[in-house]
Amino acid sequence: MKKSPSTLKIIPLGGLHEIGKNTCVFEYDDEIIILDAGLGFPTDGMHGVNIVLPDITYLCENHHKIKGMIVTHGHEDHIGGIPFHLKNIEIPVIYGPRLAIALLHHKLEEAGVQNRTELKTVRPRDIFRLGKNFSIECIRNTHSIADSFTIAITTPVGVVIHTGDFKIDHTPVDGETFDLQKLAEYGEKRVHCLISDSTNSEVPGFTPSEKSVYPSLDRVFFEAPGRIMVTTFASSVHRLQIVLELAKKHDRLVAVVGRSMLNVIAHARNLGYLNCEDSLFVPLHSVRNVSDEKLLILTTGSQGEPMSALTRIAKGEHKQIKISQGDTVIFSANPIPGNTIAIVNTIDKLMMLGAHVIYGKDKGIHVSGHGCQEDQKLMLALTRPKFFIPFHGEHRMLVKHSQTAQNMGVHPENMVVIQNGDVVELTQDSIYNAGKVSSGIELVDSSRSGMVEDNILKERQQLAEDGVVTVALAVSFDGKLIGQPQLHLRGVVSAVEKAQLQEMVIKVLEKDLSYYWPDYANSNVHNNTQIDWSGLQNELESGMQRMLRREFQSQPLLVFLMHILDAEGEKEITVKTVGRRRRRSTAKVAS
Amino acid sequence: MKKSPSTLKIIPLGGLHEIGKNTCVFEYDDEIIILDAGLGFPTDGMHGVNIVLPDITYLCENHHKIKGMIVTHGHEDHIGGIPFHLKNIEIPVIYGPRLAIALLHHKLEEAGVQNRTELKTVRPRDIFRLGKNFSIECIRNTHSIADSFTIAITTPVGVVIHTGDFKIDHTPVDGETFDLQKLAEYGEKRVHCLISDSTNSEVPGFTPSEKSVYPSLDRVFFEAPGRIMVTTFASSVHRLQIVLELAKKHDRLVAVVGRSMLNVIAHARNLGYLNCEDSLFVPLHSVRNVSDEKLLILTTGSQGEPMSALTRIAKGEHKQIKISQGDTVIFSANPIPGNTIAIVNTIDKLMMLGAHVIYGKDKGIHVSGHGCQEDQKLMLALTRPKFFIPFHGEHRMLVKHSQTAQNMGVHPENMVVIQNGDVVELTQDSIYNAGKVSSGIELVDSSRSGMVEDNILKERQQLAEDGVVTVALAVSFDGKLIGQPQLHLRGVVSAVEKAQLQEMVIKVLEKDLSYYWPDYANSNVHNNTQIDWSGLQNELESGMQRMLRREFQSQPLLVFLMHILDAEGEKEITVKTVGRRRRRSTAKVAS
Repeated sequence: MKKSPSTLKIIPLGGLHEIGKNTCVFEYDDEIIILDAGLGFPTDGMHGVNIVLPDITYLCENHHKIKGMIVTHGHEDHIGGIPFHLKNIEIPVIYGPRLAIALLHHKLEEAGVQNRTELKTVRPRDIFRLGKNFSIECIRNTHSIADSFTIAITTPVGVVIHTGDFKIDHTPVDGETFDLQKLAEYGEKRVHCLISDSTNSEVPGFTPSEKSVYPSLDRVFFEAPGRIMVTTFASSVHRLQIVLELAKKHDRLVAVVGRSMLNVIAHARNLGYLNCEDSLFVPLHSVRNVSDEKLLILTTGSQGEPMSALTRIAKGEHKQIKISQGDTVIFSANPIPGNTIAIVNTIDKLMMLGAHVIYGKDKGIHVSGHGCQEDQKLMLALTRPKFFIPFHGEHRMLVKHSQTAQNMGVHPENMVVIQNGDVVELTQDSIYNAGKVSSGIELVDSSRSGMVEDNILKERQQLAEDGVVTVALAVSFDGKLIGQPQLHLRGVVSAVEKAQLQEMVIKVLEKDLSYYWPDYANSNVHNNTQIDWSGLQNELESGMQRMLRREFQSQPLLVFLMHILDAEGEKEITVKTVGRRRRRSTAKVAS
Repeated sequence: MKKSPSTLKIIPLGGLHEIGKNTCVFEYDDEIIILDAGLGFPTDGMHGVNIVLPDITYLCENHHKIKGMIVTHGHEDHIGGIPFHLKNIEIPVIYGPRLAIALLHHKLEEAGVQNRTELKTVRPRDIFRLGKNFSIECIRNTHSIADSFTIAITTPVGVVIHTGDFKIDHTPVDGETFDLQKLAEYGEKRVHCLISDSTNSEVPGFTPSEKSVYPSLDRVFFEAPGRIMVTTFASSVHRLQIVLELAKKHDRLVAVVGRSMLNVIAHARNLGYLNCEDSLFVPLHSVRNVSDEKLLILTTGSQGEPMSALTRIAKGEHKQIKISQGDTVIFSANPIPGNTIAIVNTIDKLMMLGAHVIYGKDKGIHVSGHGCQEDQKLMLALTRPKFFIPFHGEHRMLVKHSQTAQNMGVHPENMVVIQNGDVVELTQDSIYNAGKVSSGIELVDSSRSGMVEDNILKERQQLAEDGVVTVALAVSFDGKLIGQPQLHLRGVVSAVEKAQLQEMVIKVLEKDLSYYWPDYANSNVHNNTQIDWSGLQNELESGMQRMLRREFQSQPLLVFLMHILDAEGEKEITVKTVGRRRRRSTAKVAS
């Protein structure tokens, strides 16, 4: 990747062809700035994976260039990767809006990396420099979390506007409207390049205002005969504000359930993004003293997450909260694709326990935090970009967004639909996809420290599909089985009885052993260094593999252990690997 | 479950709280008839499971009562369970419409059970008896597959109508309209009990006619510059007819890809449910000779199934078909919840390869085969049931459907919202949920013969999450380790190096062995029958388990193998199980 003197490189490491782990690198000369660093969540087949991170090899290799980072808002898919990255790269400073910085500070403390960077709070219309080449202005936008920014980056090739996540909400809950004037000011001079949120590019019309949820929830609250439970994303601060206001209006005390919900509420109240009195809240252990029609429970679990409070409530496994007839449960969040089944299962369970459950798109109890086609058009109209990059979405959403931009007058040659790891080179006259850096994903397991490698995922997939068979045998120096081979099955479906299978294993091993022994033992069987134990083991293992696959009609993972026993005393032999195939086990000599 | 003399029992074994495996038992005195016997598909966590069947313990226990079965139509979720059940229970005769019986015959042959029952084709308005107590009339309805029935069962307590799957399509593709007159005839005398399809009970309005898909697809065909690929459910015979007609109209030859698609087309053409000429088709191996704008490919894979033709095409792994610029791919089927991610991944991959992909609800290229609220109301209005059971849907759909019925005048006490395994007792004056029979699911693995038990699923889940660790060691008769213990990891994430871990394993084993040896070996260590090998092994295994969990911060499955070695010759000792905990492995003595 050579670059011409006046070229800005834009390299998305995450956020394309997916929802999540938004991470965008801007590079000019020997300077890099990073916009957002989020995490993603595992999809099917990522067994035992809790968190998905982008591959940041490129940043590691160019860490000396990094001048700083900007975060647009406090959602996990925009700040969640930072605690992990700080263990590998140095980021001198991170700028962001107050709420995001407060949430990020908490995260860094939890991970014990709070001293590895400097966090700086910026306010709307603040302008600051990063390095010699980047001047950044923060523009207040509207989104489902309070205190969210669109970012204008003035670079040597021109002004680049990155919208961050946005919708255009003219009546936001906190009254803090989108700073359309500032956007228009940039648009007056024409923005050089717009990088814009594509989440809802397939949906016609405008996204309704967050405030439109208020009357719908108000009606549900009015009609609820007993307890009310509301579940939403913990980070939807505006939604929380609406729910708290309605709780007060309907004279209900609020109990909060779920760690992330408690955390966001604490920070958002501290910073003044959530306005309510202390007296509105009741601790969870005291809810029994509150009568049903005076109680509201605010809980995590809107996505049917297995360990969340609401899921445990629906299963009847929650200690303090049991569903009873007359309860109203409100799902004030849309299902993220992939979570649908978990969510409807939760809904069904709650209904079976007697709860009245309010859910679904047509109830007016949820609106998206991302702009639809008309919001996207207004963004294009205000900024009047010469060049355009659709961002934050899956491929078909990016394609759709680029069609919208084309309809708005952006020349097709002035747009690129890109993938994670693509290197976009932007000059004063051109935009093109100039190559690729190392991209992909890293998978973090539940310990939050181990990385799950691809080969481990493959092994887990095989284990999940067909289980594992362990065969352990002992072979003497004259090539005979000693004792009975041991056989263990875990997660394996077998139509054959264990005892019968054991016999088959012995039979196959004895047969293979007598067949292959002459080939691998040479003539001098008493000099063990002359015996190709490893080669022999490979043959026996292959034979066992074939037998098991035939019997089970499936492909369980085989762990094959061979002890080599000698009466002459304890001694170990280093077994040569034959190289013909990946060694699945080792042979060892004992006694 | 005692029953009063004039009581009809209705026992759903599948089809409630789920979509799939529809199976409904009707029992009067000592006679049972079964309506449909479908299969379901696995959900998340059912590792290595291909097919889900209902638990038919109740039918096995009462097999002598079974007089016969009726199938309403040829979909997998209505006939797919039969080949499995015939291995366990005797069903003297199975009645059904022509196409369903043809497809079922093929299935039974494949499974080698075609001689275990008698298949009988019935036509609309045919009336036949089963046993002394059941008289059955078949009523033609409209659904996404041709030749589909609603069933009227005249029993000693009154007429029960089971709608089967239906929508009310006044302009069906094959011109065979819903026999509303026959329904009305039953309604004139009031139907005693209606059991009705609840799939779309949450959707307002009427389901559009299947024919409405024609003009939408026609327009897409007209605009397609190159090859066209259409994917839909193989069993959507009407949709296939539309696609074939349009292929002819637009002068395209049709290549069919996918085993199930070929199978359904062959049977439907044989029986006259698909009308088209042989010359319309081109074999797959000859598609290279057909120019792009003259070719249509009809393929399976509308649900993103991993092994389906379209998924392999999207991955670039299909031998004969490669996507190229100018191809148009049409998804003429709605995503089943749970398949969404697989489908959108397929769509994205196809787009990245250059295909124009048509998908989504608003394109008019798919309509449901199940009636919405207005269809359901018309069914209630025509049959005027005294009692009502919503069927075929998840819990919230059943609840919604019962609300619709209540709005139509059915008394709340005359309805039951039930679960699989519930025993509904219907008399002339009452309906109630009288108890429960064994219900649940059986999971069939890829071999189609093995059943996946619940404990195996749990093991697979653990294996999938955290992998498996195998530790094999040899202990001498005086309680010392012989040679080095062997350690194997599969699917395990470890921050510790293998060699280092190996040392830790040895250290823990040596420490535990010297600590516990005196407790389990008594005083006489040379008389091996005095040594509680099993108890010792349990202690060592527990210690190993603790160490691994601490090191990995996860819970891999541990397979722990202990050889007991003696220099006096080959001898085996039966190890007593200590009973304190489930034995996870066995100790054995060799040499």
